[in-house]
Amino acid sequence: MAIKKLGSQTIRLLNPPSIISTGTVVGPKEGEGPLAQYFDTILDDDLFGEDSWEKAESKLTKESVKSALSKARLNMTDMEYMFGGDLLNQLMSTSFAARDLQIPFFGLYGACSTMTESLSLASMIIDGGYADNVVATTSSHFSAAERQYRFPLESGNQRPVTSQWTVTGSGSAILSAKGEGPYITYVTTGKVIDFGIKDATNMGAAMAPAAVDTIRMHLADTGFKPDDYDLIITGDLGKIGHQIALELLEKEGYDLSKVLKDCGIEVFDNEKQDTHSGGSGCGCSAVVFCGYLYDQLKSKNLNKILLISTGALLSPTSTLQGESIPSIAHAVTIESKLVN
Amino acid sequence: MAIKKLGSQTIRLLNPPSIISTGTVVGPKEGEGPLAQYFDTILDDDLFGEDSWEKAESKLTKESVKSALSKARLNMTDMEYMFGGDLLNQLMSTSFAARDLQIPFFGLYGACSTMTESLSLASMIIDGGYADNVVATTSSHFSAAERQYRFPLESGNQRPVTSQWTVTGSGSAILSAKGEGPYITYVTTGKVIDFGIKDATNMGAAMAPAAVDTIRMHLADTGFKPDDYDLIITGDLGKIGHQIALELLEKEGYDLSKVLKDCGIEVFDNEKQDTHSGGSGCGCSAVVFCGYLYDQLKSKNLNKILLISTGALLSPTSTLQGESIPSIAHAVTIESKLVN
Repeated sequence: MAIKKLGSQTIRLLNPPSIISTGTVVGPKEGEGPLAQYFDTILDDDLFGEDSWEKAESKLTKESVKSALSKARLNMTDMEYMFGGDLLNQLMSTSFAARDLQIPFFGLYGACSTMTESLSLASMIIDGGYADNVVATTSSHFSAAERQYRFPLESGNQRPVTSQWTVTGSGSAILSAKGEGPYITYVTTGKVIDFGIKDATNMGAAMAPAAVDTIRMHLADTGFKPDDYDLIITGDLGKIGHQIALELLEKEGYDLSKVLKDCGIEVFDNEKQDTHSGGSGCGCSAVVFCGYLYDQLKSKNLNKILLISTGALLSPTSTLQGESIPSIAHAVTIESKLVN
Repeated sequence: MAIKKLGSQTIRLLNPPSIISTGTVVGPKEGEGPLAQYFDTILDDDLFGEDSWEKAESKLTKESVKSALSKARLNMTDMEYMFGGDLLNQLMSTSFAARDLQIPFFGLYGACSTMTESLSLASMIIDGGYADNVVATTSSHFSAAERQYRFPLESGNQRPVTSQWTVTGSGSAILSAKGEGPYITYVTTGKVIDFGIKDATNMGAAMAPAAVDTIRMHLADTGFKPDDYDLIITGDLGKIGHQIALELLEKEGYDLSKVLKDCGIEVFDNEKQDTHSGGSGCGCSAVVFCGYLYDQLKSKNLNKILLISTGALLSPTSTLQGESIPSIAHAVTIESKLVN
């Protein structure tokens, strides 16, 4: 349970938890995207047999947790804590899933940064010796998010080219004190950053400075160079936010052009699937990590990655009240094997 | 940083953090209540110089954090993490406060259970050796909550007698690896409990079973008897929920009639102040703990208390969709001195 505090925002886990399994459930559109083969379940219909999109999202969460448990051959009663959240008001998806799962529950809200917020706290709880098995989960749902944050789908509003497409999906990861990796080895916790962007249809631009701040702090705290990573991947900056992040990093003296990718760009074929700047939502980095990236780490195609889920902490009310968009990004280092 | 896991939901902190200071800011109505003398700042106007109630609530959070820091003679840069949340969609109060405070931030949502959720995670982060100084904070605001969850104030809706009055206020506590107490010694994390209550104007009834479940688990896990505590105090069950909790506990074989109180009953003079079943909201247990209870622990009038903030995890959408009200309660033991 020893740890070493490296800097103001980063800790190194000396008893790093192992991610022993993951589960993913995604919607039909995600199932037509380039990462389809890495998802456990692809829905035919985004209502998932429920009578509302919000209830469907909650079912996504339950089923992705159950899928991860099943692969780890564990039961719900083996889980000591669940960390999770979603984009719906009052965490409707995760709160109602936690009711059925009956795992002691810490609800989190970090907008689309919630997957790494969840992995950060879950990994500290394991490393600190407070639990042996913990689940970290997040979800989002395109149709539920559109009507809560933007417009009813029925009104057929035109989407600006800067807009992103909320991923319908849930990803869950089971962290354990025992296991053979991949391991979470470093945790960098973000500050809220706000560069004054007020356009709620351009969240990539709002979130890019937060991602850059967290990456910069992580590199400064750990002494790592960008090339020490096989991949540095943000949650959902999309094409526009990704370009801004690269430029801001260059101004700070970091060239990440070879190593920086974005889950929101990877999850859809943006040209063919008409998703404009790319995917977004709590579920975006959750399903890309729990599906594709976890597979690549297990098969050692990737050995060391930095995952930085990025969240825009605006609310429809804050936008109406003329506020700009505060953003946050949390980073975790995930390594396929431990190097002493 | 050693800890001992006692049972399925409770941990004992062997390096318990000290709560070195607290800060409170409350609205005018709370300042007319029986606990007025324990609050740092009482507002004349619940807009607090801002142009919206939501912005005023965010200022409450900022000012209660600053008040706690000032009393501890610490700066914002001394804080390694901030744990906090509120009732507003997307945590508008805490997210925007975190933007100005620039402390690495974990956003939490547990409805009115957020104060003890925050204290739970903050105390594990200190006990585990991940940080030396952490702030835990929550807020709520009557006028902002009414228009988000219920009706515009302007419509003058009649309030049922079972309804509660959301506390306008924020409480912040600074937890430190060093200090002379009071100490957080045990953490019991709740599961989501739902007895099928659907009346969103009777949240005390919905939350009582969650409080009872967490109290029951805490006593079973630790082996404590109710009388080992000077006070067992729930967050905001109100008069109706308090009575239900006592009856449910009695059915489980526990007589808590002498020791169980409720922050929602204590914070207002319910008869004179027309608050029906009592106070509620994230800010309720926050200001009662950070104001009154902290004072009583410091002066050794109370030596061992169990604080159980209680949250109703409903959303206006879940209510419209016919769902019942899932609830959760998290408990922390706070002791004025350490007994080995």
